[in-house]
Amino acid sequence: MDLEDTLLMMPGPVPVAPRVLRAMSKPMINHRSAEFAGIYADCREVLSSVFQTKNDIFLLSGSGTAGMEAAVGSLVENGDKVIAIENGKFGERFKDIAARYAEVVPVVFEWGLPIDLEIVKEKLEEGAKAITLVHNETSAGILNPAAEIGKLAKKYDALFIMDGVTSLGGDDVKVDEWGVDIAVVGSQKCLAAPPGLAAVSVSEKAFETMKEVTKKPYYTDLLAYKKSGDKPKPETPYTPAIPLFYALQEALHIIKEEGVEARIKRHKTLSESLRAAVAELNIEMFPQLNEYSHYSNTVSAMKAPAGIDGENIKSGMKKRGIIIAGGQERLKSKIFRIGCMGNVTARDVLSTIQQLEIILNERGYIDNLGAGVEAATRVIDRA
Amino acid sequence: MDLEDTLLMMPGPVPVAPRVLRAMSKPMINHRSAEFAGIYADCREVLSSVFQTKNDIFLLSGSGTAGMEAAVGSLVENGDKVIAIENGKFGERFKDIAARYAEVVPVVFEWGLPIDLEIVKEKLEEGAKAITLVHNETSAGILNPAAEIGKLAKKYDALFIMDGVTSLGGDDVKVDEWGVDIAVVGSQKCLAAPPGLAAVSVSEKAFETMKEVTKKPYYTDLLAYKKSGDKPKPETPYTPAIPLFYALQEALHIIKEEGVEARIKRHKTLSESLRAAVAELNIEMFPQLNEYSHYSNTVSAMKAPAGIDGENIKSGMKKRGIIIAGGQERLKSKIFRIGCMGNVTARDVLSTIQQLEIILNERGYIDNLGAGVEAATRVIDRA
Repeated sequence: MDLEDTLLMMPGPVPVAPRVLRAMSKPMINHRSAEFAGIYADCREVLSSVFQTKNDIFLLSGSGTAGMEAAVGSLVENGDKVIAIENGKFGERFKDIAARYAEVVPVVFEWGLPIDLEIVKEKLEEGAKAITLVHNETSAGILNPAAEIGKLAKKYDALFIMDGVTSLGGDDVKVDEWGVDIAVVGSQKCLAAPPGLAAVSVSEKAFETMKEVTKKPYYTDLLAYKKSGDKPKPETPYTPAIPLFYALQEALHIIKEEGVEARIKRHKTLSESLRAAVAELNIEMFPQLNEYSHYSNTVSAMKAPAGIDGENIKSGMKKRGIIIAGGQERLKSKIFRIGCMGNVTARDVLSTIQQLEIILNERGYIDNLGAGVEAATRVIDRA
Repeated sequence: MDLEDTLLMMPGPVPVAPRVLRAMSKPMINHRSAEFAGIYADCREVLSSVFQTKNDIFLLSGSGTAGMEAAVGSLVENGDKVIAIENGKFGERFKDIAARYAEVVPVVFEWGLPIDLEIVKEKLEEGAKAITLVHNETSAGILNPAAEIGKLAKKYDALFIMDGVTSLGGDDVKVDEWGVDIAVVGSQKCLAAPPGLAAVSVSEKAFETMKEVTKKPYYTDLLAYKKSGDKPKPETPYTPAIPLFYALQEALHIIKEEGVEARIKRHKTLSESLRAAVAELNIEMFPQLNEYSHYSNTVSAMKAPAGIDGENIKSGMKKRGIIIAGGQERLKSKIFRIGCMGNVTARDVLSTIQQLEIILNERGYIDNLGAGVEAATRVIDRA
């Protein structure tokens, strides 16, 4: 098996379209030039429609985690209180990042459990400068109630910092309508570009707050990005990862051509089709929901079927040319996860279900093949 | 003029070999896989010979500035004293980064002036946890005395943090022999890869110190890179910029094929040839030297000739298809800079000198063409 022939169905990095890969073969240019400024401006414009925002958007050369640190580190410091909501690994990471800069008030639910808004409200009542939320918790396959948290944050005058790393570009994210002060996305998820860039939107209120912060990280200080981004020829404060900008620009053109709304609908349909298939195969979804939460439309987390280790399903799929994900840390072996992100097609999802059926059949968990594919196809055809 | 046809002779980004560009067209892979681990391990091995070190080396997805912050932010915190040597823009940046984390003792020389070791010694005598130095000060074209600073740091028991962003891979850097505790390089300079990665070497002593630091940045915390890098399948703590790893690996293979020693000699010869040319054209070098400092062998900074603005030379060269650099900030208009980094050839340098002569002739500064090229050729032929 050639690694280059595998199908990536993990929650990022996702497959990158050949035209996006080809965009990276262009020679380097001066990053302090009108040419680079044009690329940067073009990326920011398309991202505005993805973020559904009029806020400024900046691109950092770094992973989504760098974007998360930019959000928190630019906004809070020693003496500030930050409410950090956690119901999965990335919520935990946000909490850990916040703890490097401020006093953290953790609101922790077991990974995969839904967020109880009452508890969040109680903590907000005690006062906090900011609140962090992972919108789409990749580690557990759960979509958290961003609109509701936004309302609460507004009511109690806390800045709302949202990790949209795996929702933006694949699911509905209304930065302005929900009142998200800082939203972050990674390039290698639903935007379907290679990893290495983070895009961050910043509200006016957040900018005003940042100006008062005295102790900030350097590379991820968003005020430096604002200063450089506001120039007549917008640029980045430090040398940008030029090929990744070429790639992101092309990936965003693909998004523009498809249309953000159509793209979100495709993600929803395909994830729903996957859920229909696994239900048919007698596999349970991992997250527990309440009325404010949903299954993720960009990554599905399933419980490992009785008697089969999640890692065994993952390695079995890899042998068959499809890369899916297992559980992370405490969820290792207990769950397996299938990404449905970026330019993923019905054919990709159906092929993944087909191989999953073969593996489950080999391990004696199901008797015959085709039921999952059939259930998924019904969902896709109806859409 | 097509931008893709220009010759980049600026101090980074530098032209990237077609085989390096092609390496980025490979599809994405899982970054938690044996395949990625192999690429990472290969990069680290070649980098060890570039750094001339047995220390651990890590790759961060971010610019050289991210690497500089990793070095400082992982090592010092509130209450610590850091001596920051400045004789150019990047020395100033190191000072600014250090000020975000600790108390800075600035040792400032005007940009382009040599470092006075006596003053450094005096400050070290007063005690400091660490000292920062920019080895090759790109903004001023001066090579600072790293070996001597290393000796002083050792004598006074300060950790030695060195920005080797524009020297490593192009000039002689002996990390172990000089006692550099943390050295940093950027991918887009003498390594001739695209921008977006920083490589950082860390001594045992630096690791031991880091373990005691309680307040550190998150994304650039080098202990996290050590933990992930020490795994049987080495990885990075956060999603790496995969295409840039493909590119760096290929760029490092080119370095291995040429040989580090031959590569350094080529940089020296070509920069010397450029200096011979400008001397012949009656243009002065910008930096002032003392017995411990040298003209940079990777970027040459020249005073703008009488009556001609440095920016005018830069824009004139751009019209002729060659991108050089002007002066930064307070040096704008006063100097112009020509990079001689990466896979640069004699043909590139001679072509640059030729166009520079044409511009100087057009502006009435020289009478006839060819003298600079001839002087440079003599140096190249002698090598």
